[in-house]
Amino acid sequence: MKRMTASYRGKKGFPPGTLTHVGTIYEEKIRVRQTSFDPAGADSRDLERWQDLLPFRNDRAVAWIEINGIHDVRAIEEIGRHFSIHPLVLEDILNTTQRPKFEEFDDYLFLVAKVPFAQHPSESAVGSAQTVLKTNHRVEISFEQVSLLFGKDWVISLTERDQTLFDPVRERLLTGKGRLRGQGADYLAYALLDVIVDQFFVVLEDLGDAIEFLDEELVRRPGPNLLRQIHAFKRQLMYLHKTVWPVREIIGAFERCGSRFCSSETGPYLRDAYDHIIQAIDTVETYRDLISGMLDIYLSSISYRLNEVMKVLTIISTLFIPLTFIAGVYGMNFEYMPELKWQYGYYGVWSIMILVTLGMLRYFRRKKWL
Amino acid sequence: MKRMTASYRGKKGFPPGTLTHVGTIYEEKIRVRQTSFDPAGADSRDLERWQDLLPFRNDRAVAWIEINGIHDVRAIEEIGRHFSIHPLVLEDILNTTQRPKFEEFDDYLFLVAKVPFAQHPSESAVGSAQTVLKTNHRVEISFEQVSLLFGKDWVISLTERDQTLFDPVRERLLTGKGRLRGQGADYLAYALLDVIVDQFFVVLEDLGDAIEFLDEELVRRPGPNLLRQIHAFKRQLMYLHKTVWPVREIIGAFERCGSRFCSSETGPYLRDAYDHIIQAIDTVETYRDLISGMLDIYLSSISYRLNEVMKVLTIISTLFIPLTFIAGVYGMNFEYMPELKWQYGYYGVWSIMILVTLGMLRYFRRKKWL
Amino acid sequence: MKRMTASYRGKKGFPPGTLTHVGTIYEEKIRVRQTSFDPAGADSRDLERWQDLLPFRNDRAVAWIEINGIHDVRAIEEIGRHFSIHPLVLEDILNTTQRPKFEEFDDYLFLVAKVPFAQHPSESAVGSAQTVLKTNHRVEISFEQVSLLFGKDWVISLTERDQTLFDPVRERLLTGKGRLRGQGADYLAYALLDVIVDQFFVVLEDLGDAIEFLDEELVRRPGPNLLRQIHAFKRQLMYLHKTVWPVREIIGAFERCGSRFCSSETGPYLRDAYDHIIQAIDTVETYRDLISGMLDIYLSSISYRLNEVMKVLTIISTLFIPLTFIAGVYGMNFEYMPELKWQYGYYGVWSIMILVTLGMLRYFRRKKWL
Amino acid sequence: MKRMTASYRGKKGFPPGTLTHVGTIYEEKIRVRQTSFDPAGADSRDLERWQDLLPFRNDRAVAWIEINGIHDVRAIEEIGRHFSIHPLVLEDILNTTQRPKFEEFDDYLFLVAKVPFAQHPSESAVGSAQTVLKTNHRVEISFEQVSLLFGKDWVISLTERDQTLFDPVRERLLTGKGRLRGQGADYLAYALLDVIVDQFFVVLEDLGDAIEFLDEELVRRPGPNLLRQIHAFKRQLMYLHKTVWPVREIIGAFERCGSRFCSSETGPYLRDAYDHIIQAIDTVETYRDLISGMLDIYLSSISYRLNEVMKVLTIISTLFIPLTFIAGVYGMNFEYMPELKWQYGYYGVWSIMILVTLGMLRYFRRKKWL
Amino acid sequence: MKRMTASYRGKKGFPPGTLTHVGTIYEEKIRVRQTSFDPAGADSRDLERWQDLLPFRNDRAVAWIEINGIHDVRAIEEIGRHFSIHPLVLEDILNTTQRPKFEEFDDYLFLVAKVPFAQHPSESAVGSAQTVLKTNHRVEISFEQVSLLFGKDWVISLTERDQTLFDPVRERLLTGKGRLRGQGADYLAYALLDVIVDQFFVVLEDLGDAIEFLDEELVRRPGPNLLRQIHAFKRQLMYLHKTVWPVREIIGAFERCGSRFCSSETGPYLRDAYDHIIQAIDTVETYRDLISGMLDIYLSSISYRLNEVMKVLTIISTLFIPLTFIAGVYGMNFEYMPELKWQYGYYGVWSIMILVTLGMLRYFRRKKWL
Repeated sequence: MKRMTASYRGKKGFPPGTLTHVGTIYEEKIRVRQTSFDPAGADSRDLERWQDLLPFRNDRAVAWIEINGIHDVRAIEEIGRHFSIHPLVLEDILNTTQRPKFEEFDDYLFLVAKVPFAQHPSESAVGSAQTVLKTNHRVEISFEQVSLLFGKDWVISLTERDQTLFDPVRERLLTGKGRLRGQGADYLAYALLDVIVDQFFVVLEDLGDAIEFLDEELVRRPGPNLLRQIHAFKRQLMYLHKTVWPVREIIGAFERCGSRFCSSETGPYLRDAYDHIIQAIDTVETYRDLISGMLDIYLSSISYRLNEVMKVLTIISTLFIPLTFIAGVYGMNFEYMPELKWQYGYYGVWSIMILVTLGMLRYFRRKKWL
Repeated sequence: MKRMTASYRGKKGFPPGTLTHVGTIYEEKIRVRQTSFDPAGADSRDLERWQDLLPFRNDRAVAWIEINGIHDVRAIEEIGRHFSIHPLVLEDILNTTQRPKFEEFDDYLFLVAKVPFAQHPSESAVGSAQTVLKTNHRVEISFEQVSLLFGKDWVISLTERDQTLFDPVRERLLTGKGRLRGQGADYLAYALLDVIVDQFFVVLEDLGDAIEFLDEELVRRPGPNLLRQIHAFKRQLMYLHKTVWPVREIIGAFERCGSRFCSSETGPYLRDAYDHIIQAIDTVETYRDLISGMLDIYLSSISYRLNEVMKVLTIISTLFIPLTFIAGVYGMNFEYMPELKWQYGYYGVWSIMILVTLGMLRYFRRKKWL
Repeated sequence: MKRMTASYRGKKGFPPGTLTHVGTIYEEKIRVRQTSFDPAGADSRDLERWQDLLPFRNDRAVAWIEINGIHDVRAIEEIGRHFSIHPLVLEDILNTTQRPKFEEFDDYLFLVAKVPFAQHPSESAVGSAQTVLKTNHRVEISFEQVSLLFGKDWVISLTERDQTLFDPVRERLLTGKGRLRGQGADYLAYALLDVIVDQFFVVLEDLGDAIEFLDEELVRRPGPNLLRQIHAFKRQLMYLHKTVWPVREIIGAFERCGSRFCSSETGPYLRDAYDHIIQAIDTVETYRDLISGMLDIYLSSISYRLNEVMKVLTIISTLFIPLTFIAGVYGMNFEYMPELKWQYGYYGVWSIMILVTLGMLRYFRRKKWL
Repeated sequence: MKRMTASYRGKKGFPPGTLTHVGTIYEEKIRVRQTSFDPAGADSRDLERWQDLLPFRNDRAVAWIEINGIHDVRAIEEIGRHFSIHPLVLEDILNTTQRPKFEEFDDYLFLVAKVPFAQHPSESAVGSAQTVLKTNHRVEISFEQVSLLFGKDWVISLTERDQTLFDPVRERLLTGKGRLRGQGADYLAYALLDVIVDQFFVVLEDLGDAIEFLDEELVRRPGPNLLRQIHAFKRQLMYLHKTVWPVREIIGAFERCGSRFCSSETGPYLRDAYDHIIQAIDTVETYRDLISGMLDIYLSSISYRLNEVMKVLTIISTLFIPLTFIAGVYGMNFEYMPELKWQYGYYGVWSIMILVTLGMLRYFRRKKWL
Repeated sequence: MKRMTASYRGKKGFPPGTLTHVGTIYEEKIRVRQTSFDPAGADSRDLERWQDLLPFRNDRAVAWIEINGIHDVRAIEEIGRHFSIHPLVLEDILNTTQRPKFEEFDDYLFLVAKVPFAQHPSESAVGSAQTVLKTNHRVEISFEQVSLLFGKDWVISLTERDQTLFDPVRERLLTGKGRLRGQGADYLAYALLDVIVDQFFVVLEDLGDAIEFLDEELVRRPGPNLLRQIHAFKRQLMYLHKTVWPVREIIGAFERCGSRFCSSETGPYLRDAYDHIIQAIDTVETYRDLISGMLDIYLSSISYRLNEVMKVLTIISTLFIPLTFIAGVYGMNFEYMPELKWQYGYYGVWSIMILVTLGMLRYFRRKKWL
C-alpha cells in the first residue's frame, strides 16, 4: 500500500528528468542478455557486464535486449543514451511506482505495465500437511514493473528482477517454433505483451481457486477470521483491477498508432490480445461481484444466527421465568398462606405450571418460532 | 466459475495461433451436416466423416455447414483451411472460454456467442411429487458456445454439442416455410442469430418463474436456505448478464458492417433482433433489481423479527423479574421479619405484585409495545 | 412481471415476421373508428366491421383511424397491407410485450409506447368507509401498449383495449377547439403523443399521493406490512421508469427526423413534449429517492427501537438480578447463618439492596441510559 | 413534493398552448415596474395597472420590465402578445412547476429557473431564547420560479411574488455603480442571472450552518428525532440539486448561443457565472456526501451502543445467574440435605460463590469485555 | 467546511468584477519577490514595498514575480493593471474559495489550484512520548490557493501566505541546476505546477501512513472513537479528491492550448505531470476504497462481537434458568410435598439438574455454539 506513494519522498525538489531509481533493490548486479534473430536463425548471449553491450552491434535483423534489474542507474542511462531515449522515459523506467502507460515517440514506442505474480505464503515454513492444504488457497499477489521499448529493429525489455517470465519467448526464438523468427520487432513486442497478458490469467486462476475455497469456508463455520480474509482478497482484487485496467488502454494505443511501426499482419494479433485483456478485466470484475456477494452472505448469515440465538434465549427465558415466579411465591414464609395448607396445593401448583407452559408453547407455535 | 479462466492453464507458453481445444469434450465424434438451398429447393445431408465434406461442393445457391462438437482439432483446422479462415479465428472457435465477439474479415464475418440453457436439477432423481414441484423452480443455467462464420454463399455454424437448437431453421429451409429459402447467406446467419436471441428469452422465462417462486417463499418462512438460493440466483443473473450484454454489440457490429455482406432487406431484421436483445438485457436488469429488492426484504424482515422477539423477551422478563424479587424477599429466613407475621401480609404482597404488573403494562402501552 | 417475457413461449421457432398476437385478449371484437378533418370541419364514424374501412377513402385532408383491440390478427394484417406497412412493424404492434421504440420508414413513421394506468385495488369490493380511505392510497399501475403510425395525410392509432384515452383529442377535432384542425397529420400525432405524456403525470400524481400516505404511515407504527408496501411501490416505480425512459428517446427521434414529415411549426411543440417527459422522468427519479430514503428511515427506526427495547430490558434486569440474588442468599436453609438471627438483619438487607439500586441508577445515569 | 406534479391535474385534456396559471396565488394584484437606462442615466417607474405598460414606449437604450406575480393570465397574455412571445413560452412562464430551461427564439431568448429561499421555521412564534437558538439551524428551503426574457433592447423578468431579489440590480442601475448602465440588455440579463446564482450560495451558507449544527448534535445524544432531521435535510438537498443542476445547462446554453444576442464583452462574465454555478453544484454534492457520512455515523453509533448495552446485560446476568442458582439450591426444603447441617456450610457456599465470580471476571477480561 | 461558501456572505449585491479579498488574512504585509533569469544567469531580489515593482523593468529574458499574501487588494489591482489582467481574473485570485480552473486569454494564461498541506495536530502541545507517537498518525489537511499567471516572458505566482513551497525552484534557477534557466516562461510555469503536483504526493504519503495506522488500530480494540477518526479521514479524502480532480483538467487544458505559449519541448513534461496527477487521483481513490473497506470491517466486527456476546448470555441463561426453577420448586413451603420427605430426594434433584445440563450442552454442541 505504502509503496504506491513512497517514491516521492526522496524525489521532491529534484528537477524533472533527474534519473533516480525508486523501488526495492532485488539484486546486487543487473543482468543483460542479447538475443538476435532473423528468419534464418537466432542466437542469444549473456553479457557479463552491461558495458559489453556498447557499442551495440547486431548481425541479424532484429535484436532483443533483456535487462533484468533496473537499480543500476548509470547502466540504464548509458543504454538509454545509445538508443537516444527521452530522459523522462528513463525516469519512468527507473520509477517502479510508475502507472502503466503507453507513449509514442518519433523513433520508438514505449510501454510500461505491472505484471502480477501470485505467491502462496509460508508454503514451506508450515509443517503439518493440513495447513499446507489450506495455505494453497491463500494467495498473495505481488506486482513487478516491466518496461518495453521498441524501434525499427530492436526491442528492449526491462524487468525489476531476474525472472523467467520471458523464457518461453526466447525459447521459441531459439528453437524456431511458431512464426516469431520470421517477424519483425513489432511482433516480438506483441509476443512479450502477450506473455504479460497471459500472466494475468495465471494469477486469476489462482485467485479463482482461492475464491472457491473461501466460498466453501463460508458454508462451514464463518468467523471474523474469514471476514478478514475476504477483505484482504477484496483489496488484492482492487489492486489487480488497477493494474489490469490500464493494460487495455496500452494495447489499444499500441494497435492504433501501430501503423507506423507494425506490419499489417500484427494487427489481428494485437486485437486478439485486446480481447484477452478485456476478458481478464471481466474476470476481475466477476470476482469482485462474487466477493461482495460473499460478504453479503456472511453478514446476513451472522444476523440470521443472532436471530436464532435470540429466539432460543427468549423461548427458554419466557418459559421458565413465570414458573420460577410461581415457585418463588410459594417459597415465601408468610405465616398465613392458605394454599400451603391445602392437601393438593402442591399438585395444583404443578398443574398451573404445566398449563402456563402449554399456553406459552402454543403462543410460540402461533408466532412460528418453533 | 472456474471454467472462465481454466483455459489458460494448459496454453501458457504456446505461441499465439496454436490450435488447441479448450473445454469439456462432450462426445467422441463430431458431427457434420450440410444443408444447401436456393429459392427452388433445399436438401440436407449428414456426413458420416467430416472428411467427406472436403473438397467442398455445393449445387445450390447457399450452403450451410453445421458442425456439432469442436473438440476434433484437425477437422476444424482442415475445414478452416479450406474456407481460408484466419488461424486466430480458429483458435477462438476452439477455445470455449472465448468472450462473445464479432469480427470482420475481407471474405467473411465471424461471430461467437454464448447460448444459455436452463436445467432443472435432479428432476428425475427426486421421487416424491412435492419435491418435483419445487425443483421446477430451481433453475441452473449452463452456457454453450456457438460460432458463426459466413461469406458470400456459405454459412458455417459450430456448436459444442450435438444439439437441436438450430433444428427449426433447418426445418424451415427444407419445408420452404417463411422467406428463408429465397434469401442469401446473410439472412440465414441472421436467422441463426435470431434463434440464439430467442434462446435467451426461453431461459429468462424459466428464471421469471423461479423469481416468482422465490418471492412467494419469502412470504412464507424465510431462512438461510432461501438466502443461499437468492444469492445463487443473483450469481446466475450476473453470468447471464455477462453473456447477453456482448450479443448487443455483436448484432450492432453486424448491422453496421453488413452493407458489404448483407442485402438491404436484412437490415430491418437485424434492427429487430437488436431490439429484442435490448429487451433481454432489460429483463435481466429488471430481474437483478427484483432480486436485490428481495434480499433487502429478507434482511429487513429478519431484523424486524429480531425486534419482535426481543420485545416479547423484554416484556416477559420485565414483568416477572420484579415479582420474583418480591417473592424472593419474603422467602428469606430472617427471624425478625414483621411482615411475615401480619395476617394479611400474603394478600398485601399479592396486591403489590398486581399493582406493579399493571404499572408495567401501562408503561409498555405508552411505549407502544403492546 | 411474467408478462415481460411470456411472449416468447409460443413464438419460438416461428420465422421472424410471422404475425401472431401476444398478450391478453380483452374483448371479443376489435373496434375501428375513422375521424377525418380539414380546417373546414371534421367528422367521425364508427365502423361496424373493420372490413368496412377498406378500400380506404377520405374526403378531407387528414384521416385518423383508431383501432381499439389488436387481437384480430387478420384485421391488422389487411389494414397494414393497405397502408403498405412493413411486416416487422405489424409484428411489433401485435406483440404487447414490445419495448417502446421509434422507427422511420420511407413513407411513414412508427412509434410504440407503454401507457400507464393507475388502479386503486378493490375500491368497490371493500365495504367499510375506513378501508376505502386507505385503499385510495394503494395504487397499482398497469401498462397498455399504444402504437402510432402516421404518413403524409393519415394517422393510425392502435390500443390494446377500447379506451377513452384519446377522447379529448377527438372532441377537440370535432368541436374545432385549439389549432388541431388546421394542422396536418404530424400535429395530430404530436397531440396523441402529448396525451400519452400527460397520462404519465396523471399516474405520477396518484403515486405522489400514495408516497405521502406511506410517509405518514412511517411515523405511525411501522411494521413489516408497510415494508412490503414500500417495496411493492419501489417495484412499480422501477417498471414506470422502464416505460417512461424510452419515451424520451422516441420524442427526441421524432423531433430529429421530423423535418421530412413535420411542418416547422410542430417543432416547438415536440420540444415542449420533450421537456415534459424529462420532467416526468425527473419526478420518477425523485420518487425513487424518496422511497429509498423511506426504506432507510424504516430500517434505522427499527434498529433504534431495538436499542430502546434492549436498554429497558438491561436496566430492569441489571437492577433486579443482584437484589434477587441477595434475597436468595437469605432464603437458604443453613442451620448456621448468623445474619438470620441478628435483630436488624432484615432491615440491614433492605439497606444493602437500596444502596445497590442507587449505585446502579447512578451508573446508568453516567452511561446516559436514563 | 406534490407540487411537482400537481400542475397537470387541471390541465389534462386542454390543447397545448392554452394559457392557465398553475401554482399558488400569492397576492391579489400583480405588480409591474419599468426601468429604462442608457449610459447617460436611468429611471424607474411603478405602474399602477399593468395596462399602463401598453402601448410600450421607451425613451432610453434598454428597458427592463419587472413583473411580480404571474397569476393574472390576461396580463401575461397581453404583454406576451405585444413582445410577440410564443404561446408555449407564456405557458411555461405561467406553469410554476416548469423544469428550469433555456430556449432560443428568433428575436429573443427565454430562460426559466427555480430560485431557492431559506426559511427558519417558527422563528417568531417560539418565545424562549434557547429554542430560537436552535431553530436558527433548522432551515426550510422554498423555491420560486423566475423567468427571464430578453431581446435586443428589452428584458422582462417575471417572479411569482413581489420580492426584493433584484433590488440590488435596480439600485446599481439607478446609482450608476458598476458597468451595468453602459452595457446592453444581454449584460442586464447576465446580471439578473448572477443574482440568481448568488442566491444559491446564500441558501448554501444557511445549509452549511445547519449541517455543522447537526454534526455537533450527532456527538451529543443522538435520537430518532435527529435521524428524521437528517433525512429531511437530505431531501432538501435532493430538491436543491434538482434545481441547481439545470442552471448549469442554462448558463452554458446562454453562453453558446449568445453570439447573436451578446456583445463579446459579456462572454467572460457568463463563463464566470458558469464557474460559480459549478461551485454551487460541487457544494451541494459535498453536503450530500457529508449528510450520508453523518447517517453512517449515526447508524453505526446506534449499533455500537446496542453492543455496549448488551455487554453490560450479559456481564451482570452471567455473574449473578449462577450465584442465584446456588442460593436457590440451598433454599430447598428437603429433609435430608447434609450440607445444611454442616457448621461452615454457609461460609463454604459464600466461598464457592466468590470463586465462581472471580472465574467469571477472569473469563470476561480474557474476552476483553472489561 | 464552511469556508467553501463563506465567501459570498459579504459579496452579494456587489457588481461582478468588484475586487474584494475573501479569505483568512495571514499576515500584515504582503511580500513581493522578483527573480529574473536567462541562460547566462539569474538574480533574485526581495522588494521592500510592492510599489517598488512598478514601473516594471526586467534586464533578463524571463521575470518571475512571487507575491506571498493576497489580502492587499490595491497591490493586486495595480500589478494586475500593469500586466493588463482581466478584472474577473483578479477577482478569482483574491477569492480564496475559488474552484481550481484554467483560463486562456490573448496575452497570458491563468490557472488557480488548491495546494494541500498536511498538519499533525498538537504535536508540540502534547507532552507524553506515547501520545506524540500516536498523533504522528493523525493528519489534518489544509488547503491553500495558488494562482499562476504567465505570458511571453513573465510568470506571476500568487500564494495566500509567505511559504517555502517554491523555494526549490528558485534555488534551481539561482544555482543553474537542471535545464530551467535555459527555458522560457512556459517551462517555469510547468516547474511551478510540478511542485504543486508533488505536494499532493507529499500529503498522500502522510495519509498513507495514517491509513496504515488506522488499519492496525482496527485489529486492536475498535471503538466509536476510531469510527469517528475513520469518518474524519473519509471527509478529508473527499476534500482532497475535490481539489486534485480539477488539477487534471488544468494540466490537460494547459497542454492543449499550450501551442501558442509553449515551446514544443515543454509538451512531454506536461504530459508527464498529467500522468503524475492521474496517479495522485488513483491513489486518492485507492485510499477511499481502503477506508470504506475499513468501515465495513469495523461494522461487521461490531456485529460479530454482538453475536458472540449474545451467545454467551444465551448459553449461561439457558443453562441456569431451568436449574433455578427446579431449585425454586423444592424451595416451596407446601405442607404436603412428598419428594421433600424422600431420603434421596436431594440427590435425585441433583441428578435431574445434571442431566438437564448435559442435555443442554449437547443441544448447544449440535447447534455449533460451543
